[in-house]
Amino acid sequence: MTDTLKKDALAYHADPRPGKLSVEISTAAESSRDLSLAYSPGVAEPVRAIADNPEDAYKYTIKGNLVGVISNGSAILGLGNLGSLASKPVMEGKALLFKRFANVDSIDIEVNSSDINEIVRTVELIADTFGGINLEDIKAPECFEIERRLIESCSIPIFHDDQHGTAIVTVAGMLNALDIQGKSIESAKLVCLGAGAAAISCSRLLVAAGMKKENIVMLDRKGVIFNGREGVNQYKAEFANDTTRARTLTEAIEGADVFLGLSGPDQLSAEQLKTMADKPIIFACSNPDPEIKPELALSVRDDVIMATGRSDYPNQVNNVLGFPFIFRGALDVRATKINEEMKLAAAHAISDLAKEEILQEVIDAYGGNAFEFGPEYIIPKPLDPRLLNRVAGAVARAAVDSGVAKIALPDKYKV
Amino acid sequence: MTDTLKKDALAYHADPRPGKLSVEISTAAESSRDLSLAYSPGVAEPVRAIADNPEDAYKYTIKGNLVGVISNGSAILGLGNLGSLASKPVMEGKALLFKRFANVDSIDIEVNSSDINEIVRTVELIADTFGGINLEDIKAPECFEIERRLIESCSIPIFHDDQHGTAIVTVAGMLNALDIQGKSIESAKLVCLGAGAAAISCSRLLVAAGMKKENIVMLDRKGVIFNGREGVNQYKAEFANDTTRARTLTEAIEGADVFLGLSGPDQLSAEQLKTMADKPIIFACSNPDPEIKPELALSVRDDVIMATGRSDYPNQVNNVLGFPFIFRGALDVRATKINEEMKLAAAHAISDLAKEEILQEVIDAYGGNAFEFGPEYIIPKPLDPRLLNRVAGAVARAAVDSGVAKIALPDKYKV
Repeated sequence: MTDTLKKDALAYHADPRPGKLSVEISTAAESSRDLSLAYSPGVAEPVRAIADNPEDAYKYTIKGNLVGVISNGSAILGLGNLGSLASKPVMEGKALLFKRFANVDSIDIEVNSSDINEIVRTVELIADTFGGINLEDIKAPECFEIERRLIESCSIPIFHDDQHGTAIVTVAGMLNALDIQGKSIESAKLVCLGAGAAAISCSRLLVAAGMKKENIVMLDRKGVIFNGREGVNQYKAEFANDTTRARTLTEAIEGADVFLGLSGPDQLSAEQLKTMADKPIIFACSNPDPEIKPELALSVRDDVIMATGRSDYPNQVNNVLGFPFIFRGALDVRATKINEEMKLAAAHAISDLAKEEILQEVIDAYGGNAFEFGPEYIIPKPLDPRLLNRVAGAVARAAVDSGVAKIALPDKYKV
Repeated sequence: MTDTLKKDALAYHADPRPGKLSVEISTAAESSRDLSLAYSPGVAEPVRAIADNPEDAYKYTIKGNLVGVISNGSAILGLGNLGSLASKPVMEGKALLFKRFANVDSIDIEVNSSDINEIVRTVELIADTFGGINLEDIKAPECFEIERRLIESCSIPIFHDDQHGTAIVTVAGMLNALDIQGKSIESAKLVCLGAGAAAISCSRLLVAAGMKKENIVMLDRKGVIFNGREGVNQYKAEFANDTTRARTLTEAIEGADVFLGLSGPDQLSAEQLKTMADKPIIFACSNPDPEIKPELALSVRDDVIMATGRSDYPNQVNNVLGFPFIFRGALDVRATKINEEMKLAAAHAISDLAKEEILQEVIDAYGGNAFEFGPEYIIPKPLDPRLLNRVAGAVARAAVDSGVAKIALPDKYKV
């Protein structure tokens, strides 16, 4: 970040008033009569209705459109464990994006604990408040157990965006990159550098999308994860490799079709890239500094498709393409969870939209550069207004089809 | 409630969209540049600033203007223990009143537990999120321990409105009623019917305002609370009476100056009222049906001052005269707690305002009835716009003077 951006970012958060959100009144609240309906005595009626039928909470309160963005601040962006209070600007930012992109009301809740049991219990106890819960910036491996247990105990969608949001958008871009490079997902060989929450979730969703698990080689800081290696937790073990051949990135990358980087800056060298298969795909998602700089990659090979997490290069793999619309769709059919069918539906909807002609307003929003489906445009831009109905609609339909929706598909999603 | 009011109340909560709140974006969030400041990468700057200096959360996030309205639904209005989900319309209503009257951002959090330890721990863990916490509709005696422990462990104001809000507004009205009846608070004899959270808190604040504890007789369902009686918890014991004389309301009320009802409908009879001292004061606060109907009381004695919790009679003792402004004042000086000095300052500010000439806009808002300080106007109307600065200013000044404010008095409160 430049010093100017840093200064602007602080000013942005301080003015015109601290923070990025406000809570507003969505109904009439001027007259004495209004207030007698909003509060005592009128409010007793919806209370009684909900006591009789809990589903009425969706009819008489904000619950059905309210997502809690919950973090303990143990893995804030790439900054590490800075605690729950310091995570608040990020969580408010997430809530802002929910509103901006999908009209989902969202509020951040910071949970000051690093204890799995405490975090799970806290979220369980306050879950009534919300229609869905977006877990955020909770470090691995704790995030897996926290999410699993909450999915089991709560009847509303629980979604750890660092895992699944990243996975959905990555798969969306990957499907198109493979398509453009003329590779089939069933036979593509992938090296995943990084074995944290995002890496494991991406690999799982790629397998759900058709990739062979045996074609994935995952590496953590110690190198290739293989069966029998020490220091491999149960989550990494899911992608432990049977081969006794590759132990290092240099060994693993040779002949691979895809490099998926979810690790840190400059981890992939030009020499390593040179040994990859023809028409390779590089997703270098470390933020803000990718595993290999696009300039370097493209100077070494002109047959590569390159994606990063950055907005100043083509092909930005950005979670905002996913979570607002995924929750929109889930909330709109009152889904009890966000299952694999819904995640894959979201990935395909994002992927498909990139193949359509881009709107002039989107071109204008990004400074007039033209976009056309191809190596430099494998994924839609966040400001594409079609994402909302396409992705939310796909998710809602998948929820209905897979039997986790409590109400019927709204007309707006019927095609 | 009439059937029409019931029907209107349900419609009000369902339309134009479910509930009464929305979460909105308070800053620019249109362009790609805006979003790069609001979220990645710009958001890293306020995160780092807060990690370095936790007080910066007040500079860069909504924390300093955000109040959590937290309930477990164990004592919802007069409806009883209907559970946390059913309490949501009330808590949203409270948040609406915070915004409407004092521009405090507020969100409700329902905690699905009746266990004191669990509730305390949950609130402690999520307290970072907020600048203050309003506990609501948590039943006695649990509410006392929950609040006490949270005040000890949290560095933000914790305020159980059913106790203190009621107490502050009751004391405000009582000071004026005593004044008009020519009685001194130091010698006034009070009978408090009810021994729940509100009753105990009102009695405590009346003592802080000058009433003699030995002049208060408190009754629960079993009658007068006296030393040595069975079934008296530590909170009721605080007001246990030494006298061996009075055991029943009929015995206690004879010669009393004040009846404070925080119990249920029609608990005070015309015969009992007749035995009270000259110029008696009746606060019959049971909602919606008071301990004695104003029509009945006034038909029996013409020297009585009568207050209720209802908006359709004169002298409505309504918490909304207190909590929005109390939190406004506390937040504006970043008070670490709401202490007795601040509560008394609020009560006196409310009390004093009733003695001033009423504004025409307030008269208009209430249908054109004239108000003048006297037996039928002992307390301001909720829609009086002067309440905000008067009460919030008094609370903020008291916080500064009593040493619990972390920042200086804002100019708007300087007189």
